[in-house]
Amino acid sequence: MAESWVNPAESLGADLHLELTGPGSRRAVLMRALREAVQSGRLAPGTRLPPYRSLAADLGIARNTVADAYAELVAEGWLTARQGSGTRVAHGAAPPPGGGKVAPSAPARSLRTPAGPVRSTYDLVQGQPDPSAFPRAAWLAAARRALGNAPHDAFGPGDPRGRVELREALAGYLARVRGVRTRPERIVLCSGTAHALRLLAAVAGGRWAVESYGLSFHRGLLAGQGVDTVPLTVDEHGARIGELGTQRAVLLTPAHQFPTGGPLHPERRAAVVGWSRSTGGLVLEDDYDGEFRYDRRPVGAVQGLDPDRVVLMGSVSKSLSPTLRIGWMVLPEQLVDDIVAAKGEREQVSSATEQLTLADFITSGAYDRHVRKMRQRHRRRRDQLVAALAQRAPRVRVTGIAAGLHAVLELPSGTEGAVVKAAARQGLAVEGLADYRHPDFPKDGRDGLVVGYATPPEHRYPRALDALCRALPPE
Amino acid sequence: MAESWVNPAESLGADLHLELTGPGSRRAVLMRALREAVQSGRLAPGTRLPPYRSLAADLGIARNTVADAYAELVAEGWLTARQGSGTRVAHGAAPPPGGGKVAPSAPARSLRTPAGPVRSTYDLVQGQPDPSAFPRAAWLAAARRALGNAPHDAFGPGDPRGRVELREALAGYLARVRGVRTRPERIVLCSGTAHALRLLAAVAGGRWAVESYGLSFHRGLLAGQGVDTVPLTVDEHGARIGELGTQRAVLLTPAHQFPTGGPLHPERRAAVVGWSRSTGGLVLEDDYDGEFRYDRRPVGAVQGLDPDRVVLMGSVSKSLSPTLRIGWMVLPEQLVDDIVAAKGEREQVSSATEQLTLADFITSGAYDRHVRKMRQRHRRRRDQLVAALAQRAPRVRVTGIAAGLHAVLELPSGTEGAVVKAAARQGLAVEGLADYRHPDFPKDGRDGLVVGYATPPEHRYPRALDALCRALPPE
Repeated sequence: MAESWVNPAESLGADLHLELTGPGSRRAVLMRALREAVQSGRLAPGTRLPPYRSLAADLGIARNTVADAYAELVAEGWLTARQGSGTRVAHGAAPPPGGGKVAPSAPARSLRTPAGPVRSTYDLVQGQPDPSAFPRAAWLAAARRALGNAPHDAFGPGDPRGRVELREALAGYLARVRGVRTRPERIVLCSGTAHALRLLAAVAGGRWAVESYGLSFHRGLLAGQGVDTVPLTVDEHGARIGELGTQRAVLLTPAHQFPTGGPLHPERRAAVVGWSRSTGGLVLEDDYDGEFRYDRRPVGAVQGLDPDRVVLMGSVSKSLSPTLRIGWMVLPEQLVDDIVAAKGEREQVSSATEQLTLADFITSGAYDRHVRKMRQRHRRRRDQLVAALAQRAPRVRVTGIAAGLHAVLELPSGTEGAVVKAAARQGLAVEGLADYRHPDFPKDGRDGLVVGYATPPEHRYPRALDALCRALPPE
Repeated sequence: MAESWVNPAESLGADLHLELTGPGSRRAVLMRALREAVQSGRLAPGTRLPPYRSLAADLGIARNTVADAYAELVAEGWLTARQGSGTRVAHGAAPPPGGGKVAPSAPARSLRTPAGPVRSTYDLVQGQPDPSAFPRAAWLAAARRALGNAPHDAFGPGDPRGRVELREALAGYLARVRGVRTRPERIVLCSGTAHALRLLAAVAGGRWAVESYGLSFHRGLLAGQGVDTVPLTVDEHGARIGELGTQRAVLLTPAHQFPTGGPLHPERRAAVVGWSRSTGGLVLEDDYDGEFRYDRRPVGAVQGLDPDRVVLMGSVSKSLSPTLRIGWMVLPEQLVDDIVAAKGEREQVSSATEQLTLADFITSGAYDRHVRKMRQRHRRRRDQLVAALAQRAPRVRVTGIAAGLHAVLELPSGTEGAVVKAAARQGLAVEGLADYRHPDFPKDGRDGLVVGYATPPEHRYPRALDALCRALPPE
């Protein structure tokens, strides 16, 4: 033999023999081993490999297995095969010195959760329902019915607005529960409120008015889409609609101002529709927790006042789980085509099987049952919060408790930052009002905590309340 | 009584009585009826409503029901209630003359499907697996296991890259089947290849090289993100890598050039990695149908040649269903954080329950079984296509048949448009090569049909082939 060749069976070590007797295709195992030997430099570029017969004999496997592995690695560019020159390691396949090795596991990134960089022992940050309350059995039963009943076209390209079954279920549900007036054709499904805002920003553009207190995440998202936001003062009756000017749109939380907690006053509801009619501005109604009202039945949506001027946005993120990624926009007719185009006609977002499951979940009554159960649970937690404060911090005023999954604790001016820090020392994650204030809104001296009472599992909630009370300023 | 009031019970007509005896909460029915009466103008702004006692008597329902309905409609802004003035229809609630009525159902929009504005009798447009082949029972079984085994945190905010269970399952599967070398930390889930391209365009920017034949949908999507594309000539060995210059990235379909059909030549695989190493350009590997190869086992991914320079994009859109909306990016480590930021750390896209279901579907072996079954089915269909053409149009050359869900029929120069039209007259939707040619690519005189053989249900496929043969030019 004019030229020696490396014997990969030796070069690869005993591992290869072991692996070849284990599960998995021998060809695949051999290919993986050869790739890794090339990648690691154990088989250098230009190295000639043994004839497949020899390697097969060495490894005790079929010749065809080795021949196939060689041929495929040639096709993949790891090896080259030329008449008279044998099979060699390709030059392009080797990593540059020092680089290209299989990187070690990325260091654990400090993944930001809504609770901040680190998950605390107790979590009273608003925003998430208790994950352990997800109705698994009822959801699975709905999935079984939905998958059983689905027409074949559910698994093919569908209406870019989303499955009609879910849009029909939502039109009925939202009419009954939220006073929404619409038709399935005007509903476009999306992955949640953030997705809805991205699409609306892309279609409407311009400057938007927003509430002086709201999610900084939403403001940042809008800024990223080129939408400047101007703050409207929020008082005990919600946003001051009289401050509206010539903005292209106004983004409101009429059912339960987020996070300060009051419903938009009836006169302001009428006023914002009037503003829209006189200026052509769009009213965007973020109906994020409209189902959870405790003092009386839900306050209906502003959308019902004028479906041609108000966009209602909702989702199952608060009522079921944010991980389902199902939200909706109830749109004025003239916006439907533009929103669908912005979304991408061929890019539905949420899974059709999940959409069909939710449609069944709603029409079968399971959604009402779940919401009712969660409403009782949230109300009980709110009552526990109010009772704990009445006993241990009687001078702290609690507001925004008539609805939703959170409340606001008013604090003496200038104490908010210290209380948030004291909470952290108790292992409690909770946010101050400052996190929600619009950066262009003059500091109004309001200090407070935004306390989400829905997230902790049942058995941890009393201890979370205890940590909260210990963090509050002594009376 | 100083002032008369309208009796809504009359104004609303007999319907209200009927509805009130039917299902649903009486309060909700009354509220809906009152809203619609205001909206339609039957109850004009300023109109005084009867005292709730009177209306309750008229309707034969409880006083509290009417009182509650009034109170809620006041809260919603439909009615006003002032001491001494009674309950009246609010001024803001009425629609402007001529506008604001509940619009009639939107006219049926000409929804574009991949088959064009109208779905034809027979569909040989590439791109979709047969929706009736979706493995419902196996999927549901996986969902049952996944929902039963899921930790509670599956229903709370999760890793912005997607569920780790699915990323682990994919890392193993792609290593075994596609020769991909990665770790779960480097995989980011998305809704499909279009979503992946949007994110990569946002992060990488610049000018990209693309194949001279490809999806116009992808080119349009990139243009929408500000990415200019320049075409690389495609020949029988795939894209000519030698034409690459200083572009920021190159988008390729190495396993099976889309749509012309050949695998990228081994030397070109090495060359594109070399180009990336010398220029810093990124290689984007669209592995859209890598599992479906018929001549031999799958050609491994280019990604395995250099995981630090190649992004592999894949999805279940061809193998299972595009409606699941689950895709993935296998990324170089240095891109992971930027892609997650572009995706939105708090905006996972696909449903966690679907991600967990797919993870179980893969690790339980159900995915392999489904792919194997579909591979046999696609291959059989390809054989039927080739046989039909051999018999009825023996001079038409078929290419790209070694893999995938489509083939290309070469046509005499200048005949493509006429054949597509003749097909339409046979009720057959099929696309010509012109639909795929990059607009900046000099017309190269190639005429052909791109025939997708996966979409029709089994019983319609023979007739679709018959329609195709009748549309071809006489020999």
